Amino acid sequence: MANPLIVLLTDFGLRDPYVGVMKGVIKSINPEADIVDLGHEYPKFDIDTAALVLWVSYRYFPRGTIFVCVVDPGVGTSRRALLFVTENYFFIGPDNGCLWSAASSDGIRAVYDISSSPYMLPSPSRTFHGRDLFAPVAAYLSRGVDPDRLGTRVSVEGVVRSWIGYAEVVEGGCFAARIVYVDGFGNLMTNIHVSSITGWAYGGKVRVEYNGASLEVPFERSFGYVGWGELVCYINSWGFLEIGVNQGSAAERLGLSKGSRVKVCWVG
Amino acid sequence: MANPLIVLLTDFGLRDPYVGVMKGVIKSINPEADIVDLGHEYPKFDIDTAALVLWVSYRYFPRGTIFVCVVDPGVGTSRRALLFVTENYFFIGPDNGCLWSAASSDGIRAVYDISSSPYMLPSPSRTFHGRDLFAPVAAYLSRGVDPDRLGTRVSVEGVVRSWIGYAEVVEGGCFAARIVYVDGFGNLMTNIHVSSITGWAYGGKVRVEYNGASLEVPFERSFGYVGWGELVCYINSWGFLEIGVNQGSAAERLGLSKGSRVKVCWVG
Amino acid sequence: MANPLIVLLTDFGLRDPYVGVMKGVIKSINPEADIVDLGHEYPKFDIDTAALVLWVSYRYFPRGTIFVCVVDPGVGTSRRALLFVTENYFFIGPDNGCLWSAASSDGIRAVYDISSSPYMLPSPSRTFHGRDLFAPVAAYLSRGVDPDRLGTRVSVEGVVRSWIGYAEVVEGGCFAARIVYVDGFGNLMTNIHVSSITGWAYGGKVRVEYNGASLEVPFERSFGYVGWGELVCYINSWGFLEIGVNQGSAAERLGLSKGSRVKVCWVG
Repeated sequence: MANPLIVLLTDFGLRDPYVGVMKGVIKSINPEADIVDLGHEYPKFDIDTAALVLWVSYRYFPRGTIFVCVVDPGVGTSRRALLFVTENYFFIGPDNGCLWSAASSDGIRAVYDISSSPYMLPSPSRTFHGRDLFAPVAAYLSRGVDPDRLGTRVSVEGVVRSWIGYAEVVEGGCFAARIVYVDGFGNLMTNIHVSSITGWAYGGKVRVEYNGASLEVPFERSFGYVGWGELVCYINSWGFLEIGVNQGSAAERLGLSKGSRVKVCWVG
Repeated sequence: MANPLIVLLTDFGLRDPYVGVMKGVIKSINPEADIVDLGHEYPKFDIDTAALVLWVSYRYFPRGTIFVCVVDPGVGTSRRALLFVTENYFFIGPDNGCLWSAASSDGIRAVYDISSSPYMLPSPSRTFHGRDLFAPVAAYLSRGVDPDRLGTRVSVEGVVRSWIGYAEVVEGGCFAARIVYVDGFGNLMTNIHVSSITGWAYGGKVRVEYNGASLEVPFERSFGYVGWGELVCYINSWGFLEIGVNQGSAAERLGLSKGSRVKVCWVG
Repeated sequence: MANPLIVLLTDFGLRDPYVGVMKGVIKSINPEADIVDLGHEYPKFDIDTAALVLWVSYRYFPRGTIFVCVVDPGVGTSRRALLFVTENYFFIGPDNGCLWSAASSDGIRAVYDISSSPYMLPSPSRTFHGRDLFAPVAAYLSRGVDPDRLGTRVSVEGVVRSWIGYAEVVEGGCFAARIVYVDGFGNLMTNIHVSSITGWAYGGKVRVEYNGASLEVPFERSFGYVGWGELVCYINSWGFLEIGVNQGSAAERLGLSKGSRVKVCWVG
């Protein structure tokens, strides 16, 4: 049988030993655990981004995967720590919304408060629950320990929620949208889901309005359909409308960042 | 038996979920796959650098390793996706040259066009073939699926090639060279291969001419043979002449970068 | 039985193929080896930081773990390469102090000079012992090769040592301290260990004097006990007094960096 998969997503960065030490704790408890990084360089303290990334990514992992998300500005305070058991997965992290979109999307079967889990490391610190609480709970879960022993079952009602929200359709069939993610290429992901787009055709144009400016941008299948350095709109690999530049950065070109408001209209 | 090794090299960076999601896809298809990163922070869209890195690195991996290289500015266009079967390895990626140096160096036995592989994910995106095409093909290959089922055999003739080219010897036995790689230490790797160097001896000096300037630099076994902060030339670990600074950055000192032309002469 | 764990800590960075190639070498020798990264983005040539990180981290890894530390400005010179066998672990790296704090803390049982190990790669380079010497020795050790065959036993007396040193208590019960580590959040770790602190109570204040300035800072359990953007002192997860900013960077705020001197006094 394959080893259980534990996936880590944090804002710890890779220049400190924090992520490595979490893996040491996991391996100490379950040497058979197989650990995959889903990224550690996300903007620090940015719960929305962590929630978004987990939500678009989780479904690409095998059934039974245990996700540990540590973007946790409230560590050491009274914020709770949670374990979600969902239809196909497990999600572990602080009760600050970072797990919500993914867990609720997969279908929540039970929520456990693991804040005082008997499986945390002895003498846990107040500042590094990734090491002292989340890693050991994930490792024991991967060994088959029952969630009922890892924490206390709680109602889903009181759980902190986070959701990007889809763009609204406003007058003229335009979208009042936001930039919800900017990737390392400088591509600008909007909250316009492909399912809400009707009547657009590749090869046409959209008008993008932002900060008082207005641009017409080709709508294409991919970057390579426009010239080098040209702007392009396309459906990104998560199913959202994205603004990019062929071999360049749309974020730099347009001066937009996460949270920026844009209005997008089909021109034809 | 050991698990099959899959090695990933991309320009995706580590601040996005792209690499993690590729691993999720691989693990979903072959939970036994063992995945190693050969780096994801290479200059974006820089096919030459990816080709060079793969070429100097592949031989240090076990026989049978499957390399996946995704530096792919043409993703979503008509550029082909390829699988090379070579004497000892497998190479998967876009047909843009990034696989060529390594594959041809190991000895190409067969090339397959996997652009329309039946093993890609359903409803593949146009912008993320790393996830939707290259990862699943690598994973099924690691499970033992025959290359003939993964794609269509094609001629090696039409494949896009990339090669750094060795430095030329010009008048006076000097090398007309280029900087082909600058590492994170700021070391400047030239395209002067050790096999073309004759009559040089450690402890002597070389003259480096660049941008109208000229410097005499000691030729030594390693950085530590010169003083702190001093320039030094040495044969780097891939067998090429490299210009470095002991505990400093030659790239900063000389203002050179990838592609810069340098003339290198033995002084004695 | 679980696979042997090999942990890598270097200053190679992640933008070059160096770390990936070390893993290729390890996997070529022992395909069953399980490799964990303890970080590769540490300040280049900074032996003290590597020693500190290894020392605070090693105890979180399973018994029998093989640590390989390559922060090695003297590579290729006459500096020795060492293998420490300690009570619970193995430590491999250059004889420059980077292994000392961890190895001596765990209890040294034997030291081996592996500079001329018969297990290094054939034709080793002078500049990349991580690949040519340390990786293969670690891999063969993980396969069960006896340390006596990997190198030559030497006395612990001649080994290069490194130790952060604890802060001194000076007049008024104040600590004359240094910043010994600055993490990616900008948190300033001092060399004041919790065991030397007496009579302080959470909710009180400490005075921090540095560069002629003086600040009163709350002493709390964690960041979240002070307002957004406010300074706070706390015992960090390694047991040392640390100065942070709730969701901000203390390093930026105070203009301090590794090596900065600070005086810390309990106010009450």
